[in-house]
Amino acid sequence: MNGAEALARTLVAAQVEVCFANPGTSEMHFVSALDRVPGLRCVLGLAETVVAGCADGYGRMAGKPAATLLHCGPGLANGLANFHNARRAFTPIVSIVGDHATYHRPHDAPLTADTEALARTVSHWVRTSASAADVAADAAAAVQAARTPPGGIATLVLPADCAWNEGAQPAGALAPPPRAAVTPQAMRDAARALRSGEPAMLLLSNEALGDAGLRAAQRVAHASGALLRTPTQVPRMARGRGRASVDRIPYAVDAALKVLAGTKHLILAGAKPPVGFFAYPGKPSTLWPRDCTLHVLARPEQDAIGALEALADELGAPRAVPVPDPGPLPELQRGPFRPDAFGQALAARLPEQAIVAEDAVTSGRALFASTFAAAPHDWIQLTGGAIGHAFPAATGAAIACPERKVVCLQADGAGMYSLQALWTQARERLDVVNVVFANRRYAILQGELAAVGAAPGPASRELFDLARPEIRWTRLAEGMGVEAARVATLEAFADAFRAACARRGPFLIEFLI
Amino acid sequence: MNGAEALARTLVAAQVEVCFANPGTSEMHFVSALDRVPGLRCVLGLAETVVAGCADGYGRMAGKPAATLLHCGPGLANGLANFHNARRAFTPIVSIVGDHATYHRPHDAPLTADTEALARTVSHWVRTSASAADVAADAAAAVQAARTPPGGIATLVLPADCAWNEGAQPAGALAPPPRAAVTPQAMRDAARALRSGEPAMLLLSNEALGDAGLRAAQRVAHASGALLRTPTQVPRMARGRGRASVDRIPYAVDAALKVLAGTKHLILAGAKPPVGFFAYPGKPSTLWPRDCTLHVLARPEQDAIGALEALADELGAPRAVPVPDPGPLPELQRGPFRPDAFGQALAARLPEQAIVAEDAVTSGRALFASTFAAAPHDWIQLTGGAIGHAFPAATGAAIACPERKVVCLQADGAGMYSLQALWTQARERLDVVNVVFANRRYAILQGELAAVGAAPGPASRELFDLARPEIRWTRLAEGMGVEAARVATLEAFADAFRAACARRGPFLIEFLI
Repeated sequence: MNGAEALARTLVAAQVEVCFANPGTSEMHFVSALDRVPGLRCVLGLAETVVAGCADGYGRMAGKPAATLLHCGPGLANGLANFHNARRAFTPIVSIVGDHATYHRPHDAPLTADTEALARTVSHWVRTSASAADVAADAAAAVQAARTPPGGIATLVLPADCAWNEGAQPAGALAPPPRAAVTPQAMRDAARALRSGEPAMLLLSNEALGDAGLRAAQRVAHASGALLRTPTQVPRMARGRGRASVDRIPYAVDAALKVLAGTKHLILAGAKPPVGFFAYPGKPSTLWPRDCTLHVLARPEQDAIGALEALADELGAPRAVPVPDPGPLPELQRGPFRPDAFGQALAARLPEQAIVAEDAVTSGRALFASTFAAAPHDWIQLTGGAIGHAFPAATGAAIACPERKVVCLQADGAGMYSLQALWTQARERLDVVNVVFANRRYAILQGELAAVGAAPGPASRELFDLARPEIRWTRLAEGMGVEAARVATLEAFADAFRAACARRGPFLIEFLI
Repeated sequence: MNGAEALARTLVAAQVEVCFANPGTSEMHFVSALDRVPGLRCVLGLAETVVAGCADGYGRMAGKPAATLLHCGPGLANGLANFHNARRAFTPIVSIVGDHATYHRPHDAPLTADTEALARTVSHWVRTSASAADVAADAAAAVQAARTPPGGIATLVLPADCAWNEGAQPAGALAPPPRAAVTPQAMRDAARALRSGEPAMLLLSNEALGDAGLRAAQRVAHASGALLRTPTQVPRMARGRGRASVDRIPYAVDAALKVLAGTKHLILAGAKPPVGFFAYPGKPSTLWPRDCTLHVLARPEQDAIGALEALADELGAPRAVPVPDPGPLPELQRGPFRPDAFGQALAARLPEQAIVAEDAVTSGRALFASTFAAAPHDWIQLTGGAIGHAFPAATGAAIACPERKVVCLQADGAGMYSLQALWTQARERLDVVNVVFANRRYAILQGELAAVGAAPGPASRELFDLARPEIRWTRLAEGMGVEAARVATLEAFADAFRAACARRGPFLIEFLI
C-alpha cells in the first residue's frame, strides 16, 4: 500500500468523513487513493479560501474535523485567511497540504515555497511526513491534535513521494485527551468575586456558548446578579427562544468601554480578556476598567460547562432557573433597510433550528439584540476578522447539518472575497439562503476613517466605493448556478426570505441598502 | 507630519505612481495621507489576490514598482499566491502591509497574525517600521530594494501608530545599484562551449527576453548554430514578427527531456537551470542530459544583454543578423476549439503592440509556436505556477500601458481564483479583451492523474469536474460590469475577438471548448 492510501484509510478510521479540496498535481496520488478508499466525501471549492472556510463552518457545526486538501505553497496561502478565522474559533481541521517530492524540493521548481512557514501561521500542529511508512502515524497524530481541546488546525504536509511510495500501513485512531477540569481554586475565586456584591460580568465563549454552557451561566447569573456577555465575535452560539439572551461586546471601542464600565469583576468562561479589534490614538487596547479584576474561570481548552455548573452549585443556584422571556416576535416593519428592523424581520421568519453564518460587517451590528426572540438557532461568525467568511462557512455548515436550514448573512464587500462558494452550494444542492447586504461600499472603512478624524478625499473615495460599476449579485449567483432575487424593502425581503426558506437548495437575496 | 504622510510623500518622490490597494482599518491613516498627497493613483481590487496580481502585471510592463496596500495578516495572506508569481518573475513591487499599533500587538486581537512570517515567504526584503520617524527612510529603502536587480518584492510592515504619530519627514529616493556586469571569464567559457561544435542551447529568461536581449541572442545563434529556448513560463517576452521565434521548454517532463536531448552545452542567460514543474516516479527532476555541461553566462541579476552582446562579438557575429521569417499569417480555421488553430486565430487578429497575459493552462500549451508570425507584442505568464494570474496581471498591465491593447488568456478553473479582477477592469475602463477557455474541468489534473498511472474514480471525478453546475462566464462578467459574449467555434471567436479589439474598454469572450 502506498502512503496516500494509508493516509486515506487512516482518516476514515479516525471518523473523518468529509474532505474539502482543491488539489493540484502534487496531490494526485492522494486523490487517486480517495478514488479507491470509500468513506471520505470529497467537496470541491473553486478557490482555497472557500475550502478553508467550508472546513471551518463544518467543524464548528459537526464538532469534529473535516479534512482539507490543498496544493503546495500558493494553494495553502490562498486558504490562510479563513484558516485564520478557524484558528481563532478553535475549529478542528485536519489540513493536508501536498508538496514536492522530498528530492525535488531542492531544485526550487516554480511552485516551491516555504509551506511549513505558511502553515505555522494558522496551525496548532504542523508536521511534514518524512517517508511513506510515516504517513499513517502522522495522520493519526494530526487528527488527534485537531481534536485536542479546545480544537485546532493540524497541518500535515505530504511530500509527493511520501504519497506514492509503497510500504505503508493504515494507523488506528488516537483518542484526544479530555478537556481539563477547572481547579477548585479558580471556581472558588470566581464565587468569592460574585458573592462580593460588586458589579460582575461573565464573559462567555467557545464551549460556554452551547446550550449546556448557557444554561449553567444563566444559573450563575440568577444566583449572583452577574451580567452575561459574549465577545464581539462568537465561534458558535446557541440562541433564540428558550436560551439566555446574551448580547455581545460591541465592536466600536467607545461602545465597548461603556458596556464594561463599572464592572468590578470580569469572569472569563472560555473567553479571552476582551481587547479592541484595533488600536486608536488615545484609546485603550484593553476594554475592562482599570479597577476591574479579571478572573479566569475556564480557559478555552478547559471544561467551562463543568466549571459554570460547579460555580452555580457553589452559589446555591437552583438546578433549573427561568430564562428571561425575550418578549413576542416583533411586528414586521416596512420601508428601506434598517439594521434593527432587518433583525426583527429575520427573527420573525427564521426557521426552527436554523444555522446563521454571519459576516455582515456594518449591517450586522444590531442583529444579536433584535433576534433574541427568534426560534432556536445557532449563530457562527468570523472570529478572526478575516472577511469573506459567511459564504464558505455557511456552505460547510450545510454539509455538516443537511437537515437544517442555513442562513448566510454576507456583507457585499466581504462577500466578493469568496463568492466562489456559491458554486459549491449549487453543486452540492445545499440548503442555504444567502442574504447579501448591498450597501455598495466598504462602509466600515468610511466609519473608521471618520474615527481617525479625517475627512474623505480622492483616495478614500476611490478605495471605499463599490458602486462604480454596480455589482449585480443576482447575475453573479446565476453565473454559478444559484437562483437569486433582488429586494429593496423590508417587506420585499420578508416575502423573498419566506419563499426561499420554504424551498430546498441554495438561493441568494440581494438586499439593496 | 505623521508617518503615513511621510510614507506617501517618499513613495511619490521615488516615482511610485500607482497604488493597488485593498486596505483595512489599520491602514486608515495611510489612506488619509493618500487623500492629502497627490501623485499616487489608487486602484481598488476586490480581493487581495487581485491587488497582488495587478502589481505583478504592472511591474513587468512598467519596469518599475507599483505600491500595494494590504491589510494586516489575513489581508496579506490572500495576496501571497500572486506575489509568489511576482517573486519568480523578479517583478519590482513595494508592498505596504498595515499592522496593529506596536503596543496593541501583544494583546493578540482577532486579526493579529505573524505578518512578517507571511511576508518573508514571498519577499526579497522585509522590514517593520519601529517608529513614525523611521517610516520615510524605511520606504525609501523599500523602493530601492524593489528596484535592485533583478527586482523583487520589498515588504514594509507599517504598524498603525508608526503611521499616525507625528515627527516624520519625507525621505529622498535612493538609487538602486546597476546590474552587475558578467565576468569576462563567464563570457569566454560560453564562447568556448559554442565554438566546440557540440550541440548547444541558450536558455533565455528575464532581461534576455526583451527586444535587445533577443537580438543579441539571435546574433549568438547565427554565429554558433546554438538553439534558443525559454523556460516553460516567461516573466515577459518580446514576441511576434521581427523578433526571434523562440519556443519554450514544454511543461510535460517527457516532452521537455526530448527538447533537451542531445544538448552538450546549456548556456543560461538570465535563466535558472531547467527543472520539472513537478516530480514524477521514475522521472528525473532536472531536464538537461547527464552529459550536458551547464554554463551560467548571466544570472538573473546580471547584465544578460551586455553579456549576450559581448558573446556575439567574441564569436565574430555581425552587428545585425537576419531574424528568420516566421512565414505568413496562417489562414483562419473553422470548427471547434483546437489549441493550435486557436493560436493561429489569435496570431491573425492580434493588434500591433498588444500585451498578452496568459494563464491558459492546458489550452495554452500550443500558443507560443502558433503565434510567431503575429504582430509584435509582449507576453507575460504565471512564473510561479500559482493559477489565477492572467485576469489581474492583465488588469495591472493595462494600467501600466494605457495606450496598448491587453489580451488576457485565462483558463476557466484558474480564472475562478481571481474573477474579481474583472470589476477593476470595468471600474478603470481598461482596454482588456479577456478570453476564457471554458473546458469546464481541471483538464490539467485529469492529465496528471493519467500521468501517475491511475484511472479516474469517484473522488477525482468530483474534484476535477467544473461542469456541474455550469459556470456562466457571461453572467459573471456582466455581474461585474464587463460586457461579454459566448462563442463555440473558431470562426465565431475570430469575429468576436476582432470586434472586441476594435472597441475600447473591457470585454470578455467565453470560448466553449
